[in-house]
Amino acid sequence: MSHTVEILSVGTELLLGSIVNSDAQALSRELSGLGLNVLYHSVVGDNPRRLRAAVELARSRADVLVTTGGLGPTCDDLTKQTLAEAFGRKMVFHPECEKGIRCFFARTGREMTDNNLQQAWLPEGCEVLDNAWGTAPGCAFEADGTYVVMLPGPPSECLPMFRERALPWLARLGEGVIRSRTLRVFGAGESAVEALLRDRMNALTNPTLAPYAKEGEVELRITAKADTEAAADALIAPVEAEVRALLGDLVYGADVSGLPQVVLDAARERGLTLGTAESCTGGLVAKLITDVPGAASVFKGGVVSYHCEVKAGVLGVSQALLDEKGAVCAQVAEQMAQGARRVLGCDLAVSVTGVAGPDPDERGNPVGLVFTALAAPDGCWVKELNLVSLAARRDRTRNLAANHALDMVRRWLSGLDPAGNRWPLDG
Amino acid sequence: MSHTVEILSVGTELLLGSIVNSDAQALSRELSGLGLNVLYHSVVGDNPRRLRAAVELARSRADVLVTTGGLGPTCDDLTKQTLAEAFGRKMVFHPECEKGIRCFFARTGREMTDNNLQQAWLPEGCEVLDNAWGTAPGCAFEADGTYVVMLPGPPSECLPMFRERALPWLARLGEGVIRSRTLRVFGAGESAVEALLRDRMNALTNPTLAPYAKEGEVELRITAKADTEAAADALIAPVEAEVRALLGDLVYGADVSGLPQVVLDAARERGLTLGTAESCTGGLVAKLITDVPGAASVFKGGVVSYHCEVKAGVLGVSQALLDEKGAVCAQVAEQMAQGARRVLGCDLAVSVTGVAGPDPDERGNPVGLVFTALAAPDGCWVKELNLVSLAARRDRTRNLAANHALDMVRRWLSGLDPAGNRWPLDG
Repeated sequence: MSHTVEILSVGTELLLGSIVNSDAQALSRELSGLGLNVLYHSVVGDNPRRLRAAVELARSRADVLVTTGGLGPTCDDLTKQTLAEAFGRKMVFHPECEKGIRCFFARTGREMTDNNLQQAWLPEGCEVLDNAWGTAPGCAFEADGTYVVMLPGPPSECLPMFRERALPWLARLGEGVIRSRTLRVFGAGESAVEALLRDRMNALTNPTLAPYAKEGEVELRITAKADTEAAADALIAPVEAEVRALLGDLVYGADVSGLPQVVLDAARERGLTLGTAESCTGGLVAKLITDVPGAASVFKGGVVSYHCEVKAGVLGVSQALLDEKGAVCAQVAEQMAQGARRVLGCDLAVSVTGVAGPDPDERGNPVGLVFTALAAPDGCWVKELNLVSLAARRDRTRNLAANHALDMVRRWLSGLDPAGNRWPLDG
Repeated sequence: MSHTVEILSVGTELLLGSIVNSDAQALSRELSGLGLNVLYHSVVGDNPRRLRAAVELARSRADVLVTTGGLGPTCDDLTKQTLAEAFGRKMVFHPECEKGIRCFFARTGREMTDNNLQQAWLPEGCEVLDNAWGTAPGCAFEADGTYVVMLPGPPSECLPMFRERALPWLARLGEGVIRSRTLRVFGAGESAVEALLRDRMNALTNPTLAPYAKEGEVELRITAKADTEAAADALIAPVEAEVRALLGDLVYGADVSGLPQVVLDAARERGLTLGTAESCTGGLVAKLITDVPGAASVFKGGVVSYHCEVKAGVLGVSQALLDEKGAVCAQVAEQMAQGARRVLGCDLAVSVTGVAGPDPDERGNPVGLVFTALAAPDGCWVKELNLVSLAARRDRTRNLAANHALDMVRRWLSGLDPAGNRWPLDG
């Protein structure tokens, strides 16, 4: 039987809304990936009575309890003390933790105040989870059939502590091995993808196939459980093949970070450079590309031609065309991409021009009408998008438009028709 | 006595970690701002038994229960049904909701499937919270001393539904009026701001003064409770004056959406246009500016000169300078800004060049070394930033650098020394 998990986050700052509970999200992904069944998240403030009650509740309804936060050096930090009491353990001083804390301060060149040593007090008999990313060590123990793991709150410490320290300790709970593979799909809405796959998803039990909608794209996660990694991978492979056969070139990658990464890798492999010309996306395409470390080996630069003057003056778009048709039309997109290719001296250039909203443009073009173009050594392609049902959301319209531009480059680099994709998109 | 709140979020996607619980954060801020005491967040999946148990628990420990999610048209959406049962109410069809749902589909040009009408079934006698941002209406009722509010899950619906629909209903719980005013601070770290204000914050009870750290900036929220709006505002005014006196020109606005909005408004008022030249931020500054609807009246465009060829070829940065000193130095920042001003034909241009990481550049400049420059009709200013302690986070380094560039424009537009700010930043 699969283990059940509660993630209990401790911190008044969460209840005040000062920070979002990204720890709970990150840990949920990790724990689900291990095949554990996360049934509850809960958050309480820095209050010993309510924390104690939350711990009692958690142990009554889950057999793995993962806490985040409240391990620090101040009087507000009472997670370890409260959990030790709840599970009938004494707090003892762990001299090996003192060394780690002193090392952290020495390494980061900060002065250590004495209250930091409080962090070396941990429940008796626990497994200490050494913190290489901050000062507060975590810990883990098993008591009366409950597996308890305490992790620090700062996200930059919590996730590495889980992966590097807690995961090996928790591995004993898993039977066999869990492997998953995530296919990334762009160019079709979640409902279209689900409609295609629904029957297969419902029929599958091992591996499972689950869709996750993200802004403008869909992730399909195939998860298999087996005795060995090889056996799990062997279960995944035919399902992956089946999904790829159904979705074809909508699948742009497996276990990749996103379209920008895929585009950059494919261009780098072929020794090609890339540039952008943006109107309504206003720099977003360039931003998404340069979010990826190492983009400089492929991306030469871009022009944000928000005003028509810049479209004409910098990119060389025909002033007569702009006067006649305005900025939102296929020919302007084409000339922007060709201009960027010439001005930036790159092999491939993409452009975006359209109406991001909230209002129609001065020519009455509706919000969501967007043209993207790709200029390449062998030709120029334009795609017309009608993101009209997203009218209410400027950020979504811009994001989708930017990803369509990137997808044109991806398709060209894969030998597909850059403007060929014509699937229904969800609103 | 202050009311106590539990936020109960419903959705298996939260427990799988597919999405982060941003609703709980946003609502916590709003509810805390109202003077209500948020004591618990909890999350359960789309499971009627566990949801019912979570509702029973919540009503036993809080007197206001706010749910998010599970209001949609599919069989997984069981929040309304389950809460109606828990509070002994029948579900009844609300014809006025049917109209709203049909209108939403008509307005967005999408086809409506019949299951959408399930969303018009709501607990008997409830107050319907009409959803202008999506299809699922929310609802609110009071039963046995518990105040229940149900909101849709998508963040783009949840927060406006709370502000526009739930808040007026909840206002009855408050005694008197709650008003708040948020001062936005850029250019000093949270710990520096807190150190300056700590004594005042601790001494104040009405109004309260609370800091919230956001990426690279600090929000200071002053919240007052009084019998009338005027009386509340009268309590806020002297505290605002005091904070402004202490922090001076670090305060860039009150109740504003952010630096880009402030910069655009100030430039628009003076009839000035703006442009950008970006290297390490790769389009982020332009993207932040064009996130704001109506940016086109001020923002002409930008050049993303990621490669030196583009810095020289498009912006006219001296090739000899680039050869001698590389791209990361004060003079290049200056020439980029001046070049952008000339090429884009704008009144003000800002530039950013630096090392975003993860690795030092080929000349050994460290990650986090960034130069920003402002070219204006009356001169050019450069600022050197050392965001080195943030080395691990490419996105944070880029974000801070972009906001420093915007802050230089803000300072020039306010008649301050654009490069004058020299406060310590947190790492």
